[in-house]
Amino acid sequence: MTERLVVIGGDAAGMSAASQARRLKGPDELSITAFERGHFTSYSACGIPYWVGGDVERRDDLIARGPEEHRARDIDLRMRTEVTEIDVAGQRVRTLDRDSGETSWTGFDKLVIATGARPVRPALPGMDAAGVHGVQTLDDGQALLDSLDRATGRRAVVVGAGYIGVEMAEAMLKRGFEVTVLNRGEQPMATLDPDMGRLVHDAMDGLGITTVNRSGVTSIRTGPDGRVGAVETAGASYPADVVVLGIGVEPETALARAVGLPVGPHGGLLTDLSMRVVGHDNIWAGGDCVEVLDLVAGRTRHIALGTHANKHGQIIGSNVGGGYGTFPGVVGTAVSKVCDLEIARTGLREKDARAVGLRFVTTTIESTGRAGYYPGARPMTVKMIAEYRTGRLLGVQIVGRDGAAKRVDVAAVALTAAMTVEQMTSLDLGYAPPFSPVWDPVLVAARKTVTALRRAGTA
Amino acid sequence: MTERLVVIGGDAAGMSAASQARRLKGPDELSITAFERGHFTSYSACGIPYWVGGDVERRDDLIARGPEEHRARDIDLRMRTEVTEIDVAGQRVRTLDRDSGETSWTGFDKLVIATGARPVRPALPGMDAAGVHGVQTLDDGQALLDSLDRATGRRAVVVGAGYIGVEMAEAMLKRGFEVTVLNRGEQPMATLDPDMGRLVHDAMDGLGITTVNRSGVTSIRTGPDGRVGAVETAGASYPADVVVLGIGVEPETALARAVGLPVGPHGGLLTDLSMRVVGHDNIWAGGDCVEVLDLVAGRTRHIALGTHANKHGQIIGSNVGGGYGTFPGVVGTAVSKVCDLEIARTGLREKDARAVGLRFVTTTIESTGRAGYYPGARPMTVKMIAEYRTGRLLGVQIVGRDGAAKRVDVAAVALTAAMTVEQMTSLDLGYAPPFSPVWDPVLVAARKTVTALRRAGTA
Repeated sequence: MTERLVVIGGDAAGMSAASQARRLKGPDELSITAFERGHFTSYSACGIPYWVGGDVERRDDLIARGPEEHRARDIDLRMRTEVTEIDVAGQRVRTLDRDSGETSWTGFDKLVIATGARPVRPALPGMDAAGVHGVQTLDDGQALLDSLDRATGRRAVVVGAGYIGVEMAEAMLKRGFEVTVLNRGEQPMATLDPDMGRLVHDAMDGLGITTVNRSGVTSIRTGPDGRVGAVETAGASYPADVVVLGIGVEPETALARAVGLPVGPHGGLLTDLSMRVVGHDNIWAGGDCVEVLDLVAGRTRHIALGTHANKHGQIIGSNVGGGYGTFPGVVGTAVSKVCDLEIARTGLREKDARAVGLRFVTTTIESTGRAGYYPGARPMTVKMIAEYRTGRLLGVQIVGRDGAAKRVDVAAVALTAAMTVEQMTSLDLGYAPPFSPVWDPVLVAARKTVTALRRAGTA
Repeated sequence: MTERLVVIGGDAAGMSAASQARRLKGPDELSITAFERGHFTSYSACGIPYWVGGDVERRDDLIARGPEEHRARDIDLRMRTEVTEIDVAGQRVRTLDRDSGETSWTGFDKLVIATGARPVRPALPGMDAAGVHGVQTLDDGQALLDSLDRATGRRAVVVGAGYIGVEMAEAMLKRGFEVTVLNRGEQPMATLDPDMGRLVHDAMDGLGITTVNRSGVTSIRTGPDGRVGAVETAGASYPADVVVLGIGVEPETALARAVGLPVGPHGGLLTDLSMRVVGHDNIWAGGDCVEVLDLVAGRTRHIALGTHANKHGQIIGSNVGGGYGTFPGVVGTAVSKVCDLEIARTGLREKDARAVGLRFVTTTIESTGRAGYYPGARPMTVKMIAEYRTGRLLGVQIVGRDGAAKRVDVAAVALTAAMTVEQMTSLDLGYAPPFSPVWDPVLVAARKTVTALRRAGTA
């Protein structure tokens, strides 16, 4: 008998799961039906800022695989079809065709929930005005690009100074706008400690981006034409011809919560190591709608990132298709850039470490990405956090230019292996003058952290 | 009583040891005398190709710390003074002042041997002709630069196609020479497997560098002026206005061997984990004159590389100064480039694995350093070797552009942590379109290696 797999959501996690399951089982063993409520499948949402900024020319460059490619692999993909209800006991989902309005039921033996995340959009006056844009989907990106053409002035306000916020600040700058970033937090990039966020702030200043910290939006003021005119905060008003919302996302789990599937403290679905929804033998979930285990903190987190979604999909597809795979968790690695400034983090920030009861020492060092005498050597700041007593690495943050961001990968692997900073001092990292000083910046930070541990009467 | 430390060799290992010992102990506790037979201290030999090529403007840019700086730290540094004999039982060294010709004895309580390496210079006819140059020391580099000015034609022959060879090929190209590289091996970069060396060969072709493989030099022919005229191999003659020798180095241990200090199979001094010479409680050795433990092969190797020398010096200085440090070994990481082609390796090549009795699978994948749609995404080839049955990572080789080389660091840390390739597939590496495809090339290689292990009936 043919087993029936239903996938809710046609982006990274869902379609990776479908594709991997199909690789392992042919259509006579396993039928696969996937529902996508939007117009696109398998696209890189992370690439939208670069398309808006003009680095990536065409929208379709961001699409890894279109509906026809999926269908050619015997995946029955239904576009513009929204799943409106999961009947767990009855093993079926109800769907709505968003074009025709028709509804119907589809039965499943195994279900994959990959409903993704939705942008946080605070319910403030004027939020729905013309010229106010999210950048979560390709449709959003297209709407923003069209809006830029219609904008009469060149003043852009970006709300939020996280990854999306700073990337969109760069994009708007590249489109010739005067850019103001309104940031609720103490410094931009709240995923870094404030002392490292300060470096990002300074660099953004240098790039001509105005960043206003501790600045929560209270309303959007519209002009007589109904289009956005200004963004209001408690203390000021920022004239705006276009507004980009980069406030972050939250797991899209309404469907799953409606039938009592378990969600965690951050609103994401909870799964076991095989990405199966806790308590449900035949339901898997992955991508931006789940919480993942933070291996350093020993707690779940919500992280919306394409690389995790792809891994989840791969693992779910293996397990659904009769293979085997597990997702052990994350260490919280993230990289980004604003123009030539690279920003990276992995592991815990100071406040994360405190929140889970860890005592620690921190050090911050300055180095360069190449030998100091090699042309193009640019400064790089590395902050390292290690546990008191054990000396175990807890986190690394890097802000700099020219090879700064991907250096965080060394720390990501060290965190995964639960290395101490003492062990890290003897890591055999690649050295040649065009690629690193003779002591790689990560090694310099590790050495200094060892000294700090010793001074703290530990290690 | 003041303890007496004598250091033989004033470059990376020796002067790092001296400086670190001084940090821990003041001059009334520890006297430090260092002997350097040449004109320079603490310089970056690895930077010489970039100085010759013109990327680095001045010789002195390569000097990290000059004699006066060391002396200002209460290190009694004697330049142009060669140690000609070690009296182990008598705890003293005999020195020769190379300018005055005077000799004398200096007593020690603790001795650090940091005599470095010397270039392999085969005893072939014509090898001493004007216009034939090594690039081991700053003096060598200056002599080569002067020679370039005197050369009447623009044909350079580089003998050797390892790191120094390919870097010097780039340097000579940048100086406007027509470059031929004569390589004894099957492919350039014998530190890679030949299939990966082939990619380097192809790229060098593309850069206009002629590489002749399986081509051993038999003699250097000189012209009537006594200057080099051509390089002869068994089958051919290559006209040359300048010849650069990049054949590699071997440990400089004559002094130590003369008094029976233990050397290993590669001619380097053997030390314990604290970098103390085996069997000698008060003698340490580090840098290019020692063998290091290859943590993957479980054997010693000789690797002349500034980053190891600096670590050795640091550790020796800590131990000599009453602190504590150990050097666990290396995994064999090395990075280099020829123009924009980046070359990296870590761990074992196929033949290394075979030589130590390991059975393995290999995979090779093609990817890019950025998301495929991001501007400037360039191809990158990653080869991965994993042990049969255990699935443990054994080695990685990368050839490509734009962020290829330093990606090897991820594998270097994974090797240090003895990770399996299965574990590597879930590594949380930094992802954003300007820095990586959604599956980092290292992850793609790990996934494919897992599949290869499965097909091999293992894992």
